[in-house]
Order: sequence, then structure tokens, then C-alpha cells
Amino acid sequence: MNPSRTDARRHHDPEVRGFASDNYAGAHPEVLAALALANGGHQVAYGEDAYTDNLQRIIRSHFGATAEAYPVFNGTGANVVALQAVTDRWGAVICAESAHINVDECGAPERMGGLKLLTVPTPDGKLTPELIDRQAYGFEDEHRAMPQVVSITQSTELGTVYTPDEVRAICEHAHARGMYVHLDGSRLANAAAFLDVPMRTFTNAVGVDILSLGGTKNGAMFGEAVVVLNPDAVRRMKHLRKMSMQLASKMRFVSVQLEALLARDLWLRNARHANEMAQRLAEGVRAVGGVEILHPVQSNAVFARLPQEVSRRLQRRFRFYFWDEAAGDVRWMCSFDTTEDDVDAFVAALKEEMARQ
Amino acid sequence: MNPSRTDARRHHDPEVRGFASDNYAGAHPEVLAALALANGGHQVAYGEDAYTDNLQRIIRSHFGATAEAYPVFNGTGANVVALQAVTDRWGAVICAESAHINVDECGAPERMGGLKLLTVPTPDGKLTPELIDRQAYGFEDEHRAMPQVVSITQSTELGTVYTPDEVRAICEHAHARGMYVHLDGSRLANAAAFLDVPMRTFTNAVGVDILSLGGTKNGAMFGEAVVVLNPDAVRRMKHLRKMSMQLASKMRFVSVQLEALLARDLWLRNARHANEMAQRLAEGVRAVGGVEILHPVQSNAVFARLPQEVSRRLQRRFRFYFWDEAAGDVRWMCSFDTTEDDVDAFVAALKEEMARQ
Amino acid sequence: MNPSRTDARRHHDPEVRGFASDNYAGAHPEVLAALALANGGHQVAYGEDAYTDNLQRIIRSHFGATAEAYPVFNGTGANVVALQAVTDRWGAVICAESAHINVDECGAPERMGGLKLLTVPTPDGKLTPELIDRQAYGFEDEHRAMPQVVSITQSTELGTVYTPDEVRAICEHAHARGMYVHLDGSRLANAAAFLDVPMRTFTNAVGVDILSLGGTKNGAMFGEAVVVLNPDAVRRMKHLRKMSMQLASKMRFVSVQLEALLARDLWLRNARHANEMAQRLAEGVRAVGGVEILHPVQSNAVFARLPQEVSRRLQRRFRFYFWDEAAGDVRWMCSFDTTEDDVDAFVAALKEEMARQ
Amino acid sequence: MNPSRTDARRHHDPEVRGFASDNYAGAHPEVLAALALANGGHQVAYGEDAYTDNLQRIIRSHFGATAEAYPVFNGTGANVVALQAVTDRWGAVICAESAHINVDECGAPERMGGLKLLTVPTPDGKLTPELIDRQAYGFEDEHRAMPQVVSITQSTELGTVYTPDEVRAICEHAHARGMYVHLDGSRLANAAAFLDVPMRTFTNAVGVDILSLGGTKNGAMFGEAVVVLNPDAVRRMKHLRKMSMQLASKMRFVSVQLEALLARDLWLRNARHANEMAQRLAEGVRAVGGVEILHPVQSNAVFARLPQEVSRRLQRRFRFYFWDEAAGDVRWMCSFDTTEDDVDAFVAALKEEMARQ
Repeated sequence: MNPSRTDARRHHDPEVRGFASDNYAGAHPEVLAALALANGGHQVAYGEDAYTDNLQRIIRSHFGATAEAYPVFNGTGANVVALQAVTDRWGAVICAESAHINVDECGAPERMGGLKLLTVPTPDGKLTPELIDRQAYGFEDEHRAMPQVVSITQSTELGTVYTPDEVRAICEHAHARGMYVHLDGSRLANAAAFLDVPMRTFTNAVGVDILSLGGTKNGAMFGEAVVVLNPDAVRRMKHLRKMSMQLASKMRFVSVQLEALLARDLWLRNARHANEMAQRLAEGVRAVGGVEILHPVQSNAVFARLPQEVSRRLQRRFRFYFWDEAAGDVRWMCSFDTTEDDVDAFVAALKEEMARQ
Repeated sequence: MNPSRTDARRHHDPEVRGFASDNYAGAHPEVLAALALANGGHQVAYGEDAYTDNLQRIIRSHFGATAEAYPVFNGTGANVVALQAVTDRWGAVICAESAHINVDECGAPERMGGLKLLTVPTPDGKLTPELIDRQAYGFEDEHRAMPQVVSITQSTELGTVYTPDEVRAICEHAHARGMYVHLDGSRLANAAAFLDVPMRTFTNAVGVDILSLGGTKNGAMFGEAVVVLNPDAVRRMKHLRKMSMQLASKMRFVSVQLEALLARDLWLRNARHANEMAQRLAEGVRAVGGVEILHPVQSNAVFARLPQEVSRRLQRRFRFYFWDEAAGDVRWMCSFDTTEDDVDAFVAALKEEMARQ
Repeated sequence: MNPSRTDARRHHDPEVRGFASDNYAGAHPEVLAALALANGGHQVAYGEDAYTDNLQRIIRSHFGATAEAYPVFNGTGANVVALQAVTDRWGAVICAESAHINVDECGAPERMGGLKLLTVPTPDGKLTPELIDRQAYGFEDEHRAMPQVVSITQSTELGTVYTPDEVRAICEHAHARGMYVHLDGSRLANAAAFLDVPMRTFTNAVGVDILSLGGTKNGAMFGEAVVVLNPDAVRRMKHLRKMSMQLASKMRFVSVQLEALLARDLWLRNARHANEMAQRLAEGVRAVGGVEILHPVQSNAVFARLPQEVSRRLQRRFRFYFWDEAAGDVRWMCSFDTTEDDVDAFVAALKEEMARQ
Repeated sequence: MNPSRTDARRHHDPEVRGFASDNYAGAHPEVLAALALANGGHQVAYGEDAYTDNLQRIIRSHFGATAEAYPVFNGTGANVVALQAVTDRWGAVICAESAHINVDECGAPERMGGLKLLTVPTPDGKLTPELIDRQAYGFEDEHRAMPQVVSITQSTELGTVYTPDEVRAICEHAHARGMYVHLDGSRLANAAAFLDVPMRTFTNAVGVDILSLGGTKNGAMFGEAVVVLNPDAVRRMKHLRKMSMQLASKMRFVSVQLEALLARDLWLRNARHANEMAQRLAEGVRAVGGVEILHPVQSNAVFARLPQEVSRRLQRRFRFYFWDEAAGDVRWMCSFDTTEDDVDAFVAALKEEMARQ
């Protein structure tokens, strides 16, 4: 279980890392160890196992006595299950134009969930009560898909973070209009690390009703959970999960990964480290002339604007993506396994390529 | 990575096994080792990694040069992606009334795929050209959902196995009527082991167009693949998989499990063993008076009829499910980790409980 | 408005009638007159008009004080709106295998409503509590689409009629299991005429929760209504109707047709006449040797078995459909405009063609 | 058929007209006469009748030899059928943010068609190649719903009209990127009247692939048609129409209305008249100080900005809607039955109410 780097069956170099995505990383070794621990013997399939049972206890320790976790496979699945749970057939979802559910899920919310998304442009990926009001109207008008839920992402797709007060204002605004609040937390841990508060402080403590809790980007091999924070808002989560093709048969292996992250502080260690690497990266980049940092660096992402040609040369040395190629905008992601050396080498390479301008 | 049995973080007894489901088993140790091997470093997310690339080579070695594998999370996901791939919006699927897609997926094919299922009762879970014809009509009639694909399960939900000739007859019949053939192979390996032929012999060699290839029940932790055998039948599989919420971000961890099973003979060893345990179980049961074996035992399942009270007492000692409680029918499943001792203890217990009648 | 038979813009012969379908007939002259009456001036679109308002009063006179009518375009639309109204996203519909929703709607319930149908074979198109129980189980099992509504057709697709007691038994059975009852009443009037009781007697008086009330086959040009009999069972019918593409902008023209039928006794006169013509036809047919009447003739349909060759020759003289061509089964439908002469001529022709055997 | 104004069964005053919607008007008397003409006798249901057959001839006379008409019930139905016809399951529709499909159909395209809408803000309801490019990218990216069709509205929801050259530019742009073009023509006749060209000039002559052809707002009682202009772009329209709940059983009554409008010049007379009334209204309004006309008046709509209080008082005398209540924007619609006196009385009332400021 501790394979040598030269194992013939290994098809990749485990020392190579880039800045393309926190999904490019593998699983944290403690997660892998937990999977081994949960293996062996028979456990009831489909969620009646001891690990999923224990996960409920852990989730309640983070989110309070009424929280319920429904492990699923991936983030799109978590979002589509969660949004179906808090909408009727005629419901619509108010979200930022940049939301993952709007731009990165190939229409799964619409096609699989039958949901209508009502989008609002935002400067920084964050909704506000004022922005929500651009779509929060016509509740009684049968010609309009009924706004029933506001979906926010924390940390956002642009690497920014809502303060607890900002989330509270959104929740109060939504609730006053009869809407629930969903939080897409594929990078929830990064937000908690940045805010330096427990996850509940900016979720159920301020009114969030349902949560997509990310595991994969936090160091799991795969696995997320829909966390119901307001049980009155939902019914029959298990049916919704199953019909949405998100029910794992050997669920213990999803649950134990979330346990490995959440039972102690691995979730926070991983997130803090990734955030720190992003800070280090941003600082390094700021010292390089001609590169503009685009958004506040509040989680594990750095968005920057630089000459496209420089980016293209740099991409030959480190993997990362253009965010808006025409504008010259790029996204650099750090993950739990990014090292200080990785960052420093990247900044050095950036400096070199900028100098070749 | 080799946790002691008394590790405090272990919530279950790894020595306890039952006969409830091949999904109750964990992952084969070689699968776990492969996951560790694939870990570390960065790999492109969403399927552009070296392990997924290598999986294509392995799949082609099993199914020929044109086969393409699309790893997914679970069997329901595999089926819904595969069936969407070979139908138009107006298409219908002819299947056995007992098919997993009809009775065990909470309506996912209908709700997520927009598919209409046209079901046919069967004595043993197996379709035939004659049975297919009970639904294969009205192709031009706009009032009728258009039959576009026949879906068969191999091995079936009743533990029976189609011969290659039987599959061929179905494929020829379907193709002659303009329909494709999908094979739900969540237990494909068990069928190959029973037939003692390569998997291709009863799939693409006889005309199957698309396949749900099972990994989980064969010893994986999770993970299946949609295998396209007839590339002319499909388009844009990647979009279909993504919008169906079945795209794994860290896909290397799905692919390497399938590699662990399929690159050498682990898939076959596991399946053979499970089948042998079912044979041993059936033989043991036959020696116990008053218990009727219900279907030919051709894979890893034994269906039996016995007094309900006996079953209920036996369930207190070993986990298994009623299949038809009113009739007294039960299902006993063996898996890759079932031992001879497990079987013998179970048969002994059955004998005891029958004697208490 | 009283065009001569030789009007050049008329593309058909208004004297030709057959026995193919009650949808082949046109609109009753009183319906046409009502459309003219409702024309002219402006009326609020989408159902806020005086005719739709008045229709509510009429519907309440038939079905009691809590009934609410939602006019829609056609029967498939009525069924899909009604069934969505009484199911959750995870709901399933128990119905006869021969139900229109199962065999004649191109999968609209599945594709548009996201519904799973759980079908039961019946000898005569009628469900019973016992037959319902073949599918009414597994309510808590997330792997199974949850049975939430029983859908029956009155009169059935086979021309048979449930007695009020039979409907009551179904409703009590369904309600006791937490299911609602939907009645597909595209030929509701024919059933009332046969039973010689008010429509409420076999609908809300015995527990039916929601109704698809047919207008088209009863003499309308087009138009049906979803009638909610149990308002506690539904929410937001208007949103459901709109999103299901069944909201007429100039709704007064749907409502006034239903008014023309239902305000006085046109609905009953039309249905009685059609039923009487079916009785006359059945009597005539019984007098012809070699033709078997297949089901009790209880509405406006006659099902018969006769030599296929005779049917094919007869079809050259009168339009009608095979029901099961292989078996030699045909369906002869009467409508509000079928005349005694039509029936007598048809029987005479049948006699001739049988004699040519 | 010529009911007196005092007929007791008439629930409305046929002399009252407003400016709320062209859907508030009834049917043109020639349409009503055509319905009577098509009545009587039996005609094959579901579209195999003589009127639907004749409609094909008429549609070809307008749109050329390859055009095919599929009559449907309403505009939302026409749009959802048409858009499904030119997309795959993974397809997306680029449209203006103000498009009817986006804001007025309660999410039917998403929920019933499984479509993702990619919207673009426009100043005047009109797309351009440049605006299209804001969404026309990522065709190969499985994370993004694939843009497969551009949907434009003619005349637009804001009363503006595309020139034939503008439509051509859009079609060339779309086709060059592998996308089809759908035109929502619920007010197609008004655009043709404004442009003073045949309908084909700005549809198939310049590349439009599929059309929702409006009847209702043009003087029909109900009824639209999906007109396929590029038959290579579609398959199985009849199945799509049926499964989308848009197949009329007595289709002759849809087809004959479209015939009444389109066989001669009623469609154009109605549209011209409505447009002229809008021009007269706009001219009258321009003469009233303090009221701003908001968009070019190119069809039968006048958008204006005036003090909200004035609008509210005026609404007590004539029905019309706020378009953006906060901004004080209103929409005044004219229809085929709007009279010069109606317009003059409205302008006079507006003048009075403005004077009371």
C-alpha cells in the first residue's frame, strides 16, 4: 500500500503538480488510510452501514442537532439533489450568472431536475439582497417560474468569500419572500478557513436551509454530501438521491472519507494549507510587474490578468486554465498538496516569462 | 494501510459476512492497492488522466478495437447514460418486467432520462425474440413511445445467464427492427465465468451495441463504465455523462479500479469464486429437505423457497433478503469474499432452523 | 355561418360518418353556437374571463362546492397536469396496462411529467383493490418509485364502466395506503349515461381526488378540464398547467364549450345517444352469425372478433380500427352524431361481408 | 350563429375592448365561419384530415416546397416542440433575455423540453451576431450545455422587427457555428406587414430552419403551427408533438383556422390593421406631453413611460399592463379588432389623465 515511485503499474509521476484545479490533486493519505480501515467484511449497502451512521454524528457536531447528511458522488449530483429537495415542480432557482450550477453542469439542473435558473450578473460571484431582487418577483404569476430558492456558492467560483453577515442578510431576505437558501459548498472548508470560524457560523447559524458539502476538493478521492440544515424544508431525501442516480451501493466508502476529513481537523488543515498557498502565490505574483490580481484572494484561487502570450508559454511549464482567454484572464488554483516549492517555482517561472516579453 | 482489527476508528467487524448482497462486500485488496498506486501528484481531472487513458487500452483488449469506455459512478447512472445514448427523445426501452431499470432505480430512467419502459413478464428474467415482439410494434405510430432499444441483463436479476446464441438471437431480432441492444452488465463477469468465455463472446461478438459494465459488484469500491461497442449508435457520450451527473472529477480513481479488475484476471477470479460459492451453497441447500431452489444457479445468486418462519429465524443469524415475502421466496447472494466456511456455516444454520419446524 | 354543402372552401363531405373514433366527429352545433356567442369584444386572457368564471359555477353544480375546473387543451394534457398535481417528484402512478396514459400518450407522462407508471394487466380495463395491490407496496423503499396515485379510466378504454361501489372500493383502498385517486374521464359522460346517475356519484361522492373531464369526445371542438375534487391534494394548479403547455390564452373559447355541454343537459344527451347507438350496433351485430362481442357494451364502444378478411373488406366501406389485428379484434365507436341509419347500414354491410365468407 | 348582444347566455359585453393584449381579442368572424364550414361529418383524427392536408399546400405557398406545418395548440407548445426538434438532449438555446421562452413560459422549455437557455441582454429584444457570440462558445466542452440553436422572436417582445438582412446575418452566423435558427413567430404576420414583404423573405429565404407560426394573436380562436423550413434539421416531428401534449384529436379545427387566415389575405389584413392602430396610438400619444415612447413602433405594440399614477388612473378606464412598474413603463397592444375610435378614446383619456397631474 505504499507503492514505490517506479511501480510499473503506476502511469503517472506522483511528484508533478500544477495550478489548474483542486480536482487535479489526488486523495489525502489519511483519506486513503480511512478507506482501508472501512474495508473488509460485510456492511449493509445503500447507507445503512456503520460509517454512514457515524457520519451523521460528525455532521451534527459541525452543524447542530438537526442536521442530516446524505452522501452523494459528486458536486453536480449534490446540487441537483439539494435543489430538487427545496423546490416544487414549478420552482426556480435564483443564482449568480457565474454559479457552477449555471455554467459548469451541462444543464443538469434543468434537464435532470426540471429546474429553471434565474441568473443575475455579479461583479465578484456574490449575490446580495439587491441583486436577488432583480429576479425575486412574480411569485404568483403562473407565466413565470416561481422563485423558490436562492443558491449561493461559498467560497465562490471567483475565489471570494461571503461573510456570515452577508449570508445572513441573504437568508433573511430570501425567507421573508418565502424562498429557501441553498449553499453550494464544494469549497466550504476554504471559506471556513478564511473566515476562521466554524462552518455552522455562516450556514445554519445564519439561516442556510440546505448545503452541498464538498469532499473531493478538500482532499477526498470522491464524495460529497447534501446536508439538510432545515429538515422542515425537505421530504424524502433518500428517494430524491436514488432517482437522481446519486445513491452509492457501498456507501461506507463515501462516508468514511467524509469522516476522515471532518471527524478531526483534516478538513481545516487541508483548506488552510490551500488558502495559504494561494496567498503565497498572490504575494509572489504581486511582486512581478505587469500582472494584475483580479479578485480578492480569499480562498485557494488566484485570478489574474496578464499577456496571453506569457500565459501560453507558462502553460507549457505548469498546467492552468484561461478563465477568459480573450481578456487574458487566468485562474490559478492551489490544493491541499500544493507545496511552497511549487508556488515559488511557479512564481519564478512567471517572472521569467514576463521578462521575455 | 493495514489497520489492526481493533483500530478504534473502525466501526465494523471485518470478519462478518452475510448473503444479502454482493454490494455488502467491500473492495478487493488489489483494488485498494491500485487506488494507492494512482494517488499522489496531479492528474488532469474529468477523464484526461493517464489511468482513464490506459483503461481504454484494456477495454479494447476485452471488447475489440472500436470499444470505448466511459467510467461512471454507479449502475443506475451507467444504465441511464447508456439508454439515453441509444434513444431519441421519443424512444422507448423494451425490457423484462424484472429488470433493474424497471424495479430498482426509483424511476431514474423515466425521470432523468425521459425514457418510457415497455416491459414484458418473463419466467426467468430472460427476454427472447418472441417476448420482445410483445412490445416491438407500432414504430411509426406517434401515439406510442417508439421502441428503439432492447435492454437485457446479464447475468439476470434472477441469477440466470443468456448463452451467446440467445443474445445473438435477440440482437438480430432487434437490429432487424431498427432497435439497438443494451446489456446491463452489473454482473457481467459472473456470466463470463459461468459461460467460460471472454466477455466479448456474448456482447459485441453477437451484436450488443452498448454495455453497462459493472465494477462494484465485481470487487471495486465503486465505479462502473458505459462501454460503447457500436460507436455508430451514439454521439456525445461525454456530454450525456456530464449532464447525467456521472462525471467524476478525479476520474483516475474510477479508472484504476477497473484497471485493477480488468487488466489481468482479477475480474474473473472474483466472479468465479462468487459463482463457486453459490454452487456450493445450492448444493448444500439441496441436501436440506423442504427447501426449493427456484431458478437455475448460473451466477452468484441462489433463489429459494422455504417456510417464512425459518427464513425469519435464519435472518437473525445471517443477513439476506426476502425476494417475495408472501411466497416465502428468498435471495442468497455470494460475493468475491464469501468463504467456504461462510457457506458451510450458513447451510448448517439453515439445516438447524428447518429442523426446528 | 350555415354553409351550404357545396361551399368551395369545404374540403370534406359532412354527411360521411364511420365507426373509427368519437374523435372523428366534429363539434355539436350547440357548441359551435356557444363559440359564436363568446366571441367579440375583449376578455382577459389566460382564464380571467367571464366564461371561465362561469364554468366554475357550473362545475360546482355537478361536483359540489369545493370542485375547481382548470380548462386545458386535450386529454393527454389533462392527464399529465392532473397526475403531476397529485404526485411528488418521486411518485409513481398505478394504472391498468391498457390505460390511455400507458399506451396512447407517447410517453408524455414519463417524459413531460417525470412520472413512473406501475401497470397491472386487467381482463376488462378495470382495476380492483386486489389488482392495485400487485403494485401497491414498497412505499418506503427508495429503490422503488413511490406509488402515490391510482389512475382509473371511466368509461374504460375497453368500453366498460365501473359502478360507483367499485370506484368507492378503489378509493378507500388507495386512501388507506396514502395514495390519491385520479380518474381519466375523457368519456365520463358516457359512464354517467350508462349508470344513469350524476357524475359526482361515481367521482367525488366516492372519493376520487382529481379528474380529467373530457369535452372533445362529448361533442366539443376541443377542450377538457382538470377538475380538482379534493383541493387539499393539490397546489399551484395554474403553474402546473402553464408549465405543461396547457394554458389557453383565449380561454373563454375552451370554457364556453364546456359550458355549452355542461350547463344544461347537452353532455348527457350526447353521451346517451352515443351509448344507444353502440347498443343498437351490438344488437345488430349479435344477430349476425360468426361475430363475437368481446366486452360488455357499457358505453359507446363495441369490441368484436371476426375474420380479419371480413374486417378488411368492411373497412373499405366504413372507417374503423383493428384493436388487435392478429387476433381479429376490432373496435367500433359511436359518437354523438352517429345516426340509426349509420348503424343499420353498417350492420347490413357487415352481414353482407360475413356472407361473402 | 349570430347571437344578439342581449343573449342571456352571453356573459360579456362584445363592445368593450382595451389595450392589454392581442390575446384579449376574440376570433375574427371569418375564422368563426371557417370553423362552421369544417364542422359536420367525420374526419380522420390526429391530423389525417382534409383540412390539415390542405394546410400543407397553403404553407408551401407561403414558405416554399419543402415547408411542413405541424399544427399545435398554443405558442408555448409550438416553441417547446420546435426547440426540441432542433436540439439533442445536451443542447442549449441562445436567446434574448427578454424572449418569451425565457420569461413567459413558466420554465416549460427547461422542464418539458429538458433545454438549457443561454440568455443575452439586448437593448431592444433583438439578437445580433455579436450578442450571440456572448454565448456561442464551448461547443466541445462537456461541462457546458452545447449551443445548438439560436432562437429569435419576430416581431420581438418589445414590438421591434428584424429586417431580412438582420435575420440573414444571424442565420449565417449560427449556421457557420453549427447551430440552427428558430424563429418564434407568434406575431410573424405583424412583422411581415411592417416590412411589407412575404413571410418567407425573412424566414426560409434568409436561412431560418424552424418556425413557430402564430395564429391566435393574428385572429384565430386558438392554434399555431410549428413550420419546418429545413426538413434536414428535424426528425419525427409527429412523435415530438404528441409526446409534448400538443396533438389535437380534432385537428381539422386547428388547421381550418390557419387556412382561414393564410389561404387568402386575412392574416395580412389583420396584422396591418393592428399595426396601423399602434401607429395611430403612438402618434396620438406623441402629441400628449410627458409621455415617452420607448421603442420603435414596428408592430402592434406601443411601449411608453409615463407617471405611474396616471397609468393607474387610466387602467380604471382601459385595460393594459405595466411592463416595468417601478420604472413607470407600460405596454399598449392593438389587435385586429381595435378600432380607430378605440384608439382615439384612449388617447383622449390619456390626455385627460395627464392633465390631472
